[in-house]
Amino acid sequence: MAITVVGSVAYDSIETPAGRKDRCLGGAATYFALAASFFTDVRVIAVVGEDFGAEQEAVFHARKIDIGGIERASGKSFFWEGSYLENLNEAKTHNTELNVFASFNPKIPDAYRDSDFLFLANIDPVLQRRVREQMPDVKLVAGDTMNYWINDHRPPLLEVLKGLDILLINDTEARVLAGDKNLVKAARGVMSMGPRMLVIKHGEYGATLFHKSVEGRDSETFRAPALPLEEVVDPTGAGDSFAGGFFGYLASQPQLTPGAFRRAMFYGSVMGSYACERFGTERLEQLSRKEIDERFQVFRELTHLD
Amino acid sequence: MAITVVGSVAYDSIETPAGRKDRCLGGAATYFALAASFFTDVRVIAVVGEDFGAEQEAVFHARKIDIGGIERASGKSFFWEGSYLENLNEAKTHNTELNVFASFNPKIPDAYRDSDFLFLANIDPVLQRRVREQMPDVKLVAGDTMNYWINDHRPPLLEVLKGLDILLINDTEARVLAGDKNLVKAARGVMSMGPRMLVIKHGEYGATLFHKSVEGRDSETFRAPALPLEEVVDPTGAGDSFAGGFFGYLASQPQLTPGAFRRAMFYGSVMGSYACERFGTERLEQLSRKEIDERFQVFRELTHLD
Repeated sequence: MAITVVGSVAYDSIETPAGRKDRCLGGAATYFALAASFFTDVRVIAVVGEDFGAEQEAVFHARKIDIGGIERASGKSFFWEGSYLENLNEAKTHNTELNVFASFNPKIPDAYRDSDFLFLANIDPVLQRRVREQMPDVKLVAGDTMNYWINDHRPPLLEVLKGLDILLINDTEARVLAGDKNLVKAARGVMSMGPRMLVIKHGEYGATLFHKSVEGRDSETFRAPALPLEEVVDPTGAGDSFAGGFFGYLASQPQLTPGAFRRAMFYGSVMGSYACERFGTERLEQLSRKEIDERFQVFRELTHLD
Repeated sequence: MAITVVGSVAYDSIETPAGRKDRCLGGAATYFALAASFFTDVRVIAVVGEDFGAEQEAVFHARKIDIGGIERASGKSFFWEGSYLENLNEAKTHNTELNVFASFNPKIPDAYRDSDFLFLANIDPVLQRRVREQMPDVKLVAGDTMNYWINDHRPPLLEVLKGLDILLINDTEARVLAGDKNLVKAARGVMSMGPRMLVIKHGEYGATLFHKSVEGRDSETFRAPALPLEEVVDPTGAGDSFAGGFFGYLASQPQLTPGAFRRAMFYGSVMGSYACERFGTERLEQLSRKEIDERFQVFRELTHLD
């Protein structure tokens, strides 16, 4: 089943202990779409500026991603500059230029309206909500957010959460959103705001899937590993790639069984780990489904008793 | 096969968000021995003061732990006071009184000499080495240490590492010991100092087992989960209990196959998670083998795809 994703398509300038790269293609929707495209059809809603051309379009076309919903506006594309020199798990933002995103009003192309899955990548919750309201009939809605929206744009974010089936955030974001240091209690707190499932990403330690219907400590909780990586070249987009692998795999399944969610967590970790291996989207662009399934097996061996 | 453990048997005064308890029975060798006693025969080498009496002995006797090697000295037992008010993953030490441990010279009882497994719990590496040298014929030696010894007693610690098959430490300790922030590289650095296997404990995120013979990223690496706990009453001794479950299970196995090591990692996590549920050794004292195997199954369901 097809996924529509709304989020940023952008340029990033990134510095990590492995080096520096200026103006790579980036943005949450880009990473999400590339990762999900290995599993299902993906359609992107975003806005870009005049600096987005044939070279960038080709990255999406090569993965058969529908970019009919990427609007061209006059001005420059969203731009982010950050570094991970002290801590690979947390970016230090040096500069954010919203540019064309500042006046973005997302519109859903008619060709996108039969999408069964909707992903609200990390952008202004006001925009997330506007897209959600235009697609009331989707079967499954997931979303992401970040501390900036949690801290400074809480009311519209809380409205978005009411319309989500699944929220994907990291440890710190879950704790801040729920106001509880304990991760199990924080998970319960976040799910009381709307989403019936919550994926908390632990960076190099993997991720945990919580279900609303059950208490924290039973078999409905599922923990997927991350690969211990010897060299993290660039962690930018790892969380969005996790989301793309997770949601893309779910959309490819005939039924959303508990087993499908477990495998989806593993595929999320696989895509997140690949994303870190090169700057920007480079590794995802070159990836094959065979490599994805090979790493899935590595993850199984890394964590399974037999 | 029997395990001999050398380490502290002590009193702890502990404050956590769940409350405060003064002068509980504690010490690394105590937690290790209690946890390992569910799997195999355990023999303890330690020193205690005149404040250690029949009530404390009964805790060991109830679990059929041999305390013939616990020496009684005049003076007071080792005492530690600490709190976890801000961070449940890291104790803040308020007071450490070595007392009778200051002049301890470990002696191996004859009845302990046929032990096939030796565990050097976290104490002065000079004492760890003295015990290791008196038991040259054991089949498997594992040990623990902490940042204090890594930072301020490095030369004797490096001597101990040369005689270890397995070292169990946490993330921070591995990074400090190897001088490398990357965990895979740190693991390789630590193993180049002697141990052919390394267990790095990640607190609430589980633990990873590394083997020297292989590169970081293959099937010889194994990651065991920790249980997402809703209420951590007291994390004191969780790492020692992990070590007891891990090493105790190994000692109970007819052969040390790769599968035995994987199951041992799970049993380590099980014992660590139980230790946190009550103050001091209370939960380990009341535990049953049935509960241990039930939680083993919970861990399997928490992480296994099918």
